[in-house]
Amino acid sequence: MKRDKWLNQFSEWYQYIIENAGLIDYRYPIKGCGVWLPYGFKIRKNVLSIIRRLLDETGHEEVLFPLMITSEMLSKESEHVRSFENQVFWVTHAGEKELNEKLALRPTSETAIAPMLKLWIRSHADLPKKIYQIVSVFRYETKATRPLIRMREITTFKEAHTFHESLEDAERQINEAVEIYKKFFDSLGIPYLISRRPEWDKFAGASYSIAFDTILPDGRTLQIGTIHNLNQNFSKAFEITFEKRDGTRDFVWQTCYGISERVIASLIAVHGDDHGLVLPPKVAPIQVVIIPIPYKGYEEDVNRKCINARDQLKNANIRVVEDFREKLTPGSKFFEWELKGVPVRVEVGPQDVKNKTVTLVRRDTLERRVVGDDVLVENVLKIFDDIEENLRRRALEFQLSRVYRAKSVEEIIGMLSKGVFVFEVEWCGKDECGLMLEEKTNLNVLGIPIDKSLDDKEEKRCIICGEKAKLMIRLAKSY
Amino acid sequence: MKRDKWLNQFSEWYQYIIENAGLIDYRYPIKGCGVWLPYGFKIRKNVLSIIRRLLDETGHEEVLFPLMITSEMLSKESEHVRSFENQVFWVTHAGEKELNEKLALRPTSETAIAPMLKLWIRSHADLPKKIYQIVSVFRYETKATRPLIRMREITTFKEAHTFHESLEDAERQINEAVEIYKKFFDSLGIPYLISRRPEWDKFAGASYSIAFDTILPDGRTLQIGTIHNLNQNFSKAFEITFEKRDGTRDFVWQTCYGISERVIASLIAVHGDDHGLVLPPKVAPIQVVIIPIPYKGYEEDVNRKCINARDQLKNANIRVVEDFREKLTPGSKFFEWELKGVPVRVEVGPQDVKNKTVTLVRRDTLERRVVGDDVLVENVLKIFDDIEENLRRRALEFQLSRVYRAKSVEEIIGMLSKGVFVFEVEWCGKDECGLMLEEKTNLNVLGIPIDKSLDDKEEKRCIICGEKAKLMIRLAKSY
Repeated sequence: MKRDKWLNQFSEWYQYIIENAGLIDYRYPIKGCGVWLPYGFKIRKNVLSIIRRLLDETGHEEVLFPLMITSEMLSKESEHVRSFENQVFWVTHAGEKELNEKLALRPTSETAIAPMLKLWIRSHADLPKKIYQIVSVFRYETKATRPLIRMREITTFKEAHTFHESLEDAERQINEAVEIYKKFFDSLGIPYLISRRPEWDKFAGASYSIAFDTILPDGRTLQIGTIHNLNQNFSKAFEITFEKRDGTRDFVWQTCYGISERVIASLIAVHGDDHGLVLPPKVAPIQVVIIPIPYKGYEEDVNRKCINARDQLKNANIRVVEDFREKLTPGSKFFEWELKGVPVRVEVGPQDVKNKTVTLVRRDTLERRVVGDDVLVENVLKIFDDIEENLRRRALEFQLSRVYRAKSVEEIIGMLSKGVFVFEVEWCGKDECGLMLEEKTNLNVLGIPIDKSLDDKEEKRCIICGEKAKLMIRLAKSY
Repeated sequence: MKRDKWLNQFSEWYQYIIENAGLIDYRYPIKGCGVWLPYGFKIRKNVLSIIRRLLDETGHEEVLFPLMITSEMLSKESEHVRSFENQVFWVTHAGEKELNEKLALRPTSETAIAPMLKLWIRSHADLPKKIYQIVSVFRYETKATRPLIRMREITTFKEAHTFHESLEDAERQINEAVEIYKKFFDSLGIPYLISRRPEWDKFAGASYSIAFDTILPDGRTLQIGTIHNLNQNFSKAFEITFEKRDGTRDFVWQTCYGISERVIASLIAVHGDDHGLVLPPKVAPIQVVIIPIPYKGYEEDVNRKCINARDQLKNANIRVVEDFREKLTPGSKFFEWELKGVPVRVEVGPQDVKNKTVTLVRRDTLERRVVGDDVLVENVLKIFDDIEENLRRRALEFQLSRVYRAKSVEEIIGMLSKGVFVFEVEWCGKDECGLMLEEKTNLNVLGIPIDKSLDDKEEKRCIICGEKAKLMIRLAKSY
């Protein structure tokens, strides 16, 4: 298994995968909109079932809000609307008729849910309230669009919204959200950096934002999850109040957190190789493909054995297909199923018939192993575990190799030419130094790492002003 | 269990259920748009899982197309656009910018999928192709909107689209679709009339349309499913051609069929009673609720027994909750769970503790039954079956009582005053007689029944012109 093209020509590699692996078709006549194909839809469904389970288990309830938001609702929270107003698609007409009030396609749903929460929440007994929905959101992106990474219709936006009786309870919820997302990305073997975004890059309407970023093969970071403490900003704008335990009234405390189809983009990008997709078995629509290796005189025996193997695997609840297409050579079948990332290939040839064996090939390493018929299922299940473990380990090693602890701006500039695009540096905490850092390096500040902290023993100095540094800051070339 | 209010004040009853049973909240600030609440969302999910299974089993593949359709795409099939143009929501702006081409929110997706199918279909080997998606569609309804029945955002539109190499194969697909929908509605105990819609009421762009209608408690029909033979109308407009087996090229033959959240509306309406919802166990989010009947000195025993019962049921994969809220009386709990349609209530009181029994109350009949602890699970499962059987039978009886075989227009007028609104009459087959019939009765022609036919022995006469009749036609006061 080679990862040369994957690493060195990532952009072309990604484009090739999108066009050939059957996930989405990006040729839809509207820019930034794509069609989920059956194979991609199944991956999406499997991935969503993981996040749904994690949210359901922690008391989040799934709901579904309308797509459209009135202009008045959208503009109630002033910072929020300012940030989105250039990106909003507006419905202005129905048939020939001009609408009295223009309607926004939701860019996110804080302002859609607020008027309803105002009706639903009366007292502390209604709190905490934790809801989520998985919907399409719409943003008129002016940057170059890219399949699953920067879309104008984001078809897979999981947004959770929670409501609390105190700031402390909201903070506790932020921690829960971080834990949920960790489990989610861990289960997919996608490594991440967690950073508290700087003041100048937080979500519009939030008191602070925490983000998960992953590093793509080209070394650039992709934001794959965000968590926001909204404080009482929206509840004040929409007058969402509740009766407290002491009988007085207060505005509710609010958080929200989201992931999108970028999860699928990172699943493709982080685990792929020069042969195509490499899917973790738990989300692979097809976990095993069985391919007969025909040999004159043995066709019937080989096919019968393939069907036996299929039935064995099916009975063990493994998602398996057999590929009996006669016009294709085994080699072209291998090519196709490797491209689609099927975790295990079972080859059955005349030798296997004679020896009561099958040949297993695992997708991540392309290693071959011949095993007895009677231990097929247990070997396949073992390989599933090995693949997930290997993908996780390999991806994490890659991430570690792409983050550099820099001591000066010059050192950063030097590393950039070597293809390292993520840096951690010491920082005094002043916005002006952070902004200066961005300007000097042409990178984005991701924020303060919340997944690691400074070693206290050594004395640290801000990379910009040289003053005593208590903080670390992360910056990167990001998507 | 009484069904007086349900029957005689259906409209108020329905409104009450919508406002109180926790399915959807219709107070969203945009007319014709509602919010799916957690309980309603779970019913919707369970219902959708049935239709998904039926479609997946018959080779339909789930996909997801973009929401927006360019003005040019939408207008390619001329009849189609004429029928929808007054109902289309138009996106004209993004931020401050006016778009070069206005974009429609899909009213249905024939014109969204056509350009992609043109890319996907090359030869007969690509056919048949059967896809479906479950999405929101948007129609600016000018008639009075009504929750789940007539919405401007229809949040639950399951649309299947199929492509074939011949008219015969498309016809075969129409039959398959009819069978799928029969199984679907049968499994929910929702009775239906199947009619081939008259020429003047077929889907825009179809050569003919078949519809499923159910009869609501007020006697009016509600269209709950449609199946259309699109012939080559769209494939000609969008130039979707394929290479035939003989090497020549032809336009593909197409069908489509849809259901919507009206399934949920009919589930509510058809099975409900004066106490509220009555849900078939297979789609009930909560199948059993356990309610302790407290009695001084027995609280602990009763609660322990409730927990035992819950665990027994949970281990049998039954969706069960216990209601230990202390501030509420058993009576108010009964009221609430009956309103929500939970199929079985388990009451546990001091007598039950002594006698090693529990008391089961089934929601459809409110019959009580005391059973031994050791046969709890089997009794609950038996009651589930009995409820589904009873709901099906009761709904079918109601439907049969509300369809009248009329011999003259006068007879129809007479029955209307008795609250019967669905009629089957003999018909010559001429459009003018059908239209005249609608005018004289102020009813809608549903079409030619395809679920029953005329008895050939007797001579029949068209109810309008008196000429020899070979056909039957169905008409109704419809939603």
